[in-house]
Amino acid sequence: MKNKSQKLWHEAKKIIPGGSQLLSKRSEMFLPGGWPSYYKQAKGIEVVDLDGNRYLDFSTMGVGSCILGYADKDVNRAVKLAIDKGSMSTLNCPEEVELAELLCSLHPWAHMVRFARTGGEAMAVAVRIARAHTGKDKIAFCGYHGWGDWYLSANLGDRKNLDEHLLKGLKPAGVPRALKRTALPFSYNRIEELEKIIAKEKNIGAIVVETMRHQEPKKEFLKKVAAIAKRIGAVLIFDEISIGWRLTVGGAHVLYGVNPDIAVFAKAMSNGFPCAAIIGKRAVMESAQKTFISSTYWTDRVGPAAALATIKKLKEGKVPAHLKHIGKAIGDGWKRLAKKHTLDITILGPEALITFALNYGERSQALRTLFTQEMLARGYLAGASVYVSYAHKERHVARYLKAADAVFGILKKALGSASVTSFLHGEVAHSGFRRLT
Amino acid sequence: MKNKSQKLWHEAKKIIPGGSQLLSKRSEMFLPGGWPSYYKQAKGIEVVDLDGNRYLDFSTMGVGSCILGYADKDVNRAVKLAIDKGSMSTLNCPEEVELAELLCSLHPWAHMVRFARTGGEAMAVAVRIARAHTGKDKIAFCGYHGWGDWYLSANLGDRKNLDEHLLKGLKPAGVPRALKRTALPFSYNRIEELEKIIAKEKNIGAIVVETMRHQEPKKEFLKKVAAIAKRIGAVLIFDEISIGWRLTVGGAHVLYGVNPDIAVFAKAMSNGFPCAAIIGKRAVMESAQKTFISSTYWTDRVGPAAALATIKKLKEGKVPAHLKHIGKAIGDGWKRLAKKHTLDITILGPEALITFALNYGERSQALRTLFTQEMLARGYLAGASVYVSYAHKERHVARYLKAADAVFGILKKALGSASVTSFLHGEVAHSGFRRLT
Repeated sequence: MKNKSQKLWHEAKKIIPGGSQLLSKRSEMFLPGGWPSYYKQAKGIEVVDLDGNRYLDFSTMGVGSCILGYADKDVNRAVKLAIDKGSMSTLNCPEEVELAELLCSLHPWAHMVRFARTGGEAMAVAVRIARAHTGKDKIAFCGYHGWGDWYLSANLGDRKNLDEHLLKGLKPAGVPRALKRTALPFSYNRIEELEKIIAKEKNIGAIVVETMRHQEPKKEFLKKVAAIAKRIGAVLIFDEISIGWRLTVGGAHVLYGVNPDIAVFAKAMSNGFPCAAIIGKRAVMESAQKTFISSTYWTDRVGPAAALATIKKLKEGKVPAHLKHIGKAIGDGWKRLAKKHTLDITILGPEALITFALNYGERSQALRTLFTQEMLARGYLAGASVYVSYAHKERHVARYLKAADAVFGILKKALGSASVTSFLHGEVAHSGFRRLT
Repeated sequence: MKNKSQKLWHEAKKIIPGGSQLLSKRSEMFLPGGWPSYYKQAKGIEVVDLDGNRYLDFSTMGVGSCILGYADKDVNRAVKLAIDKGSMSTLNCPEEVELAELLCSLHPWAHMVRFARTGGEAMAVAVRIARAHTGKDKIAFCGYHGWGDWYLSANLGDRKNLDEHLLKGLKPAGVPRALKRTALPFSYNRIEELEKIIAKEKNIGAIVVETMRHQEPKKEFLKKVAAIAKRIGAVLIFDEISIGWRLTVGGAHVLYGVNPDIAVFAKAMSNGFPCAAIIGKRAVMESAQKTFISSTYWTDRVGPAAALATIKKLKEGKVPAHLKHIGKAIGDGWKRLAKKHTLDITILGPEALITFALNYGERSQALRTLFTQEMLARGYLAGASVYVSYAHKERHVARYLKAADAVFGILKKALGSASVTSFLHGEVAHSGFRRLT
């Protein structure tokens, strides 16, 4: 146990099962035994751990939530004002109506909005509305959609059903077995897999798709999915929780010209303050009234106040264009450095969520861990993905790439040695869901 | 349309299905057409609507969430500090470990904690853990537990199964029909109903109980429920979302000397800032690691910072004793006034959630609406229940009872007339779940 942050992580695992509330915030996902784990302060892209060590965040920026950077002054000002005015009362806050109107104006196909506070529950709300609207219980889906029963139930049939959808090895223990075969997976850009599902299954009430993540939709994939949804009378839900607000001010679907029946936002919409939105067509959203969807903390003022301030700044700062510019610079830098050090890597887009893969088979995860270890020693929180933020500036990228240059050199050296893992101070990072002890 | 607040409510219903995110914040639940609906500012127990009208809140105080009063200066200070330090990052916030430790020290039977941001999702987490731990999917329950599939599924069998559990007429549309008969209701204080369930049903993985609401546990009800849970190998979950922190600093179960396997908190724990906690015994909580329970916004710093500050003040201010004292004064006042005006009412405890019922059969709801209408005209948000807060002082109660004296007189007059409803400016308030247009 080297320092306060790591000690606290050790203690946390005794009192919080899994250590964190989020798989992607487990130290073992980045650098077992070496990751700082806890922060005292965060501002812009700088994070200070409990021992006062300072890092520039070239990793997830709050798992994609802090699109403007940490502790953004404009969002924080709006939130503090909301708090001074009282962030909760027996009456409703007008900000949620303003936010509903703004979301509909950015997505003119949508007419009504419900709010939640986390992405996972927002997806459960969307699925509930879709099932209530169609009277059909089954869901065809692709992509990652959180911890909900409706989604994890896919792994009741085959434990590997979700392995292709971002996180491997998700265990469905505790999901009622009665839900077996209610969630049916298909792969992104494989319209034939969806067609196969609907040929067999008549009770599909919703088709749920991550609008995109690292793959661009090909051969009019989204348009074809929409056509199928319409044909079979299913509600089309686009999950924009991870990709929304990064490519354009709103959902990525706006860029592709395909409108769903419902779209779900969270994460970047409110720059780190809990808020989520379910937007949709009037006829579908009105079905929310056929069922009971109600929670006290969905009514606080902080969430919509943060979202209003965030979206305003996303527009005024032309943030998506900035993310694209910076992400491209990072990706181009990786490419150049890989060439220099003759490393075989693949760059994955989109720029706003720029990612590289190390093409070294079973050594890849150890190499990625080594990258994180050596970047950390140089003052960077870094993995294979960068959730670019408005606070990432060109000067940060230049500094980061200078460090990456040295670290890519170490990776090359490790590859030339008998064992990549011998370069690691600790264990190889986890790549999916696993029990922590 | 009289004013800005009511106009906005009218607009909201066009863009938010049901108007609000919470059934209990619908104007129709209080005073259709007359309720102020939206607030500009709230401080202590004073709420200012969009038109600048000022009210003292003798109703729900944010549906039970603002136990210290609105915009409490100590909680707000702690939250603003958390915001200045950056309320979200790629790393975890140490406050959640501190909060986990505090919750376990207040409930020494509990060893581990998970967090969520809303009560409804926290109950879903608790049920998931229980099912994962026992491998048994069915739930026996009593009381109100939110909007989740696991709970609403009770109404798939019989639409009236939930009618006795706080809210009447909850519709389960959109809950997968495969969940039919997975949630089995029994009545509070009727241990024989639970015994009947377990005699028939062998697959009960959890027994879920609101520790108490308006009824005291009788004839060792909670102890007997705990014994049954132990005997059949089910996880006992106490839902402390509404009652927790009001009777003692912690769960109401502490007062009754009965420990569950899991207890769930939200609402008052964080004085209006979204936060929820699932606390439990080590062996049970470790089963959270058998399944995937993970959400980005469960990791923000505002929630635990608010909860830490709230719990500190609850202890230092001896808040539960204050709530009892004030609630008793309100209840005694109602009693005295009812006698004076010869109104037949019943007072329901506990004092911290003091409630009266008007015993006039089908005229009762119109009378309750008239009470709200006339109290509103006198500057009070008032219904049949008062969620007492630390900000309610004796002088407020004296003023409130003076107004109630006049209003009870009007109620008596209405009862003596041909029609109670003719005294109403609008419609009778809704008493349960209903579609809004």
